[in-house]
Amino acid sequence: MRGIRAARARVAPTAAERRAKESAAAEALALVGREISGREHIAGAELGGSYAKGTWLAGADIDVFVVFDVSVSEARLESESRRIGFASMRAHRPYVRYASHPYVEAEIRGTRVNVVPCYGVRRGEWRSAADRSRFHTEHMSRALTPQMRDDVRVLKRLLQSNGLYGAELAREAFSGYACEVLVAHHGSLEAAVRALARARRGDVIGSADGPQSTPLAIMDPVDPARNLALAVSPANIGRLVMLCRAVESGSMPLSPARARPDAGMLRSTVTVRFFARARPPETIWGQAKSAASALAARLGEGGFGVMRHGAHVSEPAGARPRVTLAFVLESTSAPRWSVGTGPDHFDAANAARFAEANARRSPLVWVGQDSRLRAVRRREHVTATALLRDALSRRLAASGVPAGLRRDVRAGFAVRAGVRASDRLLVGAISDLVSTDARALGGRR
Amino acid sequence: MRGIRAARARVAPTAAERRAKESAAAEALALVGREISGREHIAGAELGGSYAKGTWLAGADIDVFVVFDVSVSEARLESESRRIGFASMRAHRPYVRYASHPYVEAEIRGTRVNVVPCYGVRRGEWRSAADRSRFHTEHMSRALTPQMRDDVRVLKRLLQSNGLYGAELAREAFSGYACEVLVAHHGSLEAAVRALARARRGDVIGSADGPQSTPLAIMDPVDPARNLALAVSPANIGRLVMLCRAVESGSMPLSPARARPDAGMLRSTVTVRFFARARPPETIWGQAKSAASALAARLGEGGFGVMRHGAHVSEPAGARPRVTLAFVLESTSAPRWSVGTGPDHFDAANAARFAEANARRSPLVWVGQDSRLRAVRRREHVTATALLRDALSRRLAASGVPAGLRRDVRAGFAVRAGVRASDRLLVGAISDLVSTDARALGGRR
Repeated sequence: MRGIRAARARVAPTAAERRAKESAAAEALALVGREISGREHIAGAELGGSYAKGTWLAGADIDVFVVFDVSVSEARLESESRRIGFASMRAHRPYVRYASHPYVEAEIRGTRVNVVPCYGVRRGEWRSAADRSRFHTEHMSRALTPQMRDDVRVLKRLLQSNGLYGAELAREAFSGYACEVLVAHHGSLEAAVRALARARRGDVIGSADGPQSTPLAIMDPVDPARNLALAVSPANIGRLVMLCRAVESGSMPLSPARARPDAGMLRSTVTVRFFARARPPETIWGQAKSAASALAARLGEGGFGVMRHGAHVSEPAGARPRVTLAFVLESTSAPRWSVGTGPDHFDAANAARFAEANARRSPLVWVGQDSRLRAVRRREHVTATALLRDALSRRLAASGVPAGLRRDVRAGFAVRAGVRASDRLLVGAISDLVSTDARALGGRR
Repeated sequence: MRGIRAARARVAPTAAERRAKESAAAEALALVGREISGREHIAGAELGGSYAKGTWLAGADIDVFVVFDVSVSEARLESESRRIGFASMRAHRPYVRYASHPYVEAEIRGTRVNVVPCYGVRRGEWRSAADRSRFHTEHMSRALTPQMRDDVRVLKRLLQSNGLYGAELAREAFSGYACEVLVAHHGSLEAAVRALARARRGDVIGSADGPQSTPLAIMDPVDPARNLALAVSPANIGRLVMLCRAVESGSMPLSPARARPDAGMLRSTVTVRFFARARPPETIWGQAKSAASALAARLGEGGFGVMRHGAHVSEPAGARPRVTLAFVLESTSAPRWSVGTGPDHFDAANAARFAEANARRSPLVWVGQDSRLRAVRRREHVTATALLRDALSRRLAASGVPAGLRRDVRAGFAVRAGVRASDRLLVGAISDLVSTDARALGGRR
């Protein structure tokens, strides 16, 4: 894996980038510090995240944590940290964003700054999702050598370039902290890659309190009850394992992968699109994914072979989020007929009921060689578009689309069979579903 | 079940029919008797079958059994009985037919006469398939009262009219002897109908040596090792049970049922037809059914939903038998794409092989949420006709079509999608597959 040494140099920030980041971080911390001074229920403000741990890539955010006393209520923590964020960043056009709590974001000379509230808890006594971060910073500051920090950068860039970076629902992949844990646990990126390339189902990286539900587990060294891989889809765990095999074989794909959607797959894809009311990304992505799964199930029941399905939410600045649900089908049409299986003919009462119920509506009723009654039924919908339109209009309540999205769907939706390669935005939204991840799966040596 | 009394009168032979049958029987027996006289290894000739048991319907055959000494070889039994048959019936245009043994058939004043060889064995020491018959005759002559004989006639006619009569492979239904056993066992047709309408899976009619494999068992009182229902398809057992429920509810359908093929099902049916060399019916029907099952499996593997399949052999006098295989499909076309599931990505060697093998030929390869690799494949055939033509030409040896039929198929075959309602012969051949058996399944009261 000679590629790793060369990669370290490639991903390390330049001297100019370091200077710019340091200046932005110092200014952000100073601005927040000024705002909190004199407030007794705030212990202080401190830098966190990848910058504090020295594992940042050019372009990374700066995180400033405002540490509240545990006596402060959650409501007050939210409102006060918001005020602090806006006041401190007022010269930098602040706005609110949502993770599990709202926080304030701004940009100082091209570097995004997040002002994030947390509680100054003791280890293990977590109250808000951000409380662990300070312990992560502290732990990694001790655990990572300078070379390991460079290795973390390489790993982050490798995952970024291959669609495997980010623990948010939109990605279901690996967080920056998971990258740090992998390198710290194995001692180097090379060792981490070797171990992942040889991973077996059920392997646990780190020490866990008990057996884990993920195909691979990555335990948080700061909290042995927390499996970082829970945020990662099993498919993405597989892609990491296979990517590591490729890296071990000499590949080091640090430039962004270009998806190459297959024309046949685009033609065989049916999409549902609609606009949604703005809400936190984790909420809407969760709803969109759940809607896609539910509609995939409806399609399956309706006789359509769903090869893959997925959801995408595009959030253009200032515009409403647009939800795209996509279904890659064996065929966009289904057989006209299907066979319903009834009771055993020995079960007299039910057999009579089945025969009676089907006498008129079924073109063909018979006794099968397994002694069960059967009846042919005409499928209600022979095209996927007709089925989806019906599910999203007349049968929306029973469609499985989460209640939170139904009002958006009612306001209007578009169902289309086939995706034109020239429709760049749409192709971009569904490209993961219709492209082979050749780097992990190409079988290259 | 008042219908039964009226039915007895309807099916009983008229006085004229009785006289004609008696005269034909007497003449047949006399002709055969004259031919065998003086042959020491032949014990005699005797009347058997439904005539001897008094359970015959107008139009029934007369069976004359030629009883050979057990010391006679099978080859000699066959050749000598054939000579006797031809010599005795020479005035009545005899010809050979095949059951398990060849036998001679002729027609005396409109009544078909079968001259059948058997061995004069002791009970249980069966050597040829016909040997049991004399014991059946003896048993039923004692067991059946005159009213039970009439009941047997009603049951036979009921089964005839509903496609449930005949234990040969073409029918896979109930023999005349099975009708006699049912009535004799229960004491009357009414009691037999009541019992069958309430049958439970695993019921055994008569006494068996052990558990039986058929959904219902009908044991031969002359041979407790023999289950008469083995010749009956499970579907036909079901149709009898349901027909009995209809009879119990007041129905008595003694006129032939008219099949009403459904137009939609005819359109959704694909047929394969070819001519075969002449051979015994049990042989060719067995081969045809086996070919239909094998090709149904090929269609299923190819992505076609086969709702029903079947075979038919038409044997027009003097012409070659014509085999028709029919497949009622959910759709005559299949999806263009299918998904192949590969190994778990944790299985490094096989995962690499799968990825490599599919890198070029598959438009889409990915890791599934179950950790297994998947690849989309283009189906070779998207129409059932193309698949069947390919299976019957290029891939005949691997098609599952029995070797005995392959030469016939090689000589030429026709594959067609959709059956025209106007094609009477073809519709007749497949009507069982595309018609609802409304009498048993109509849910009438």
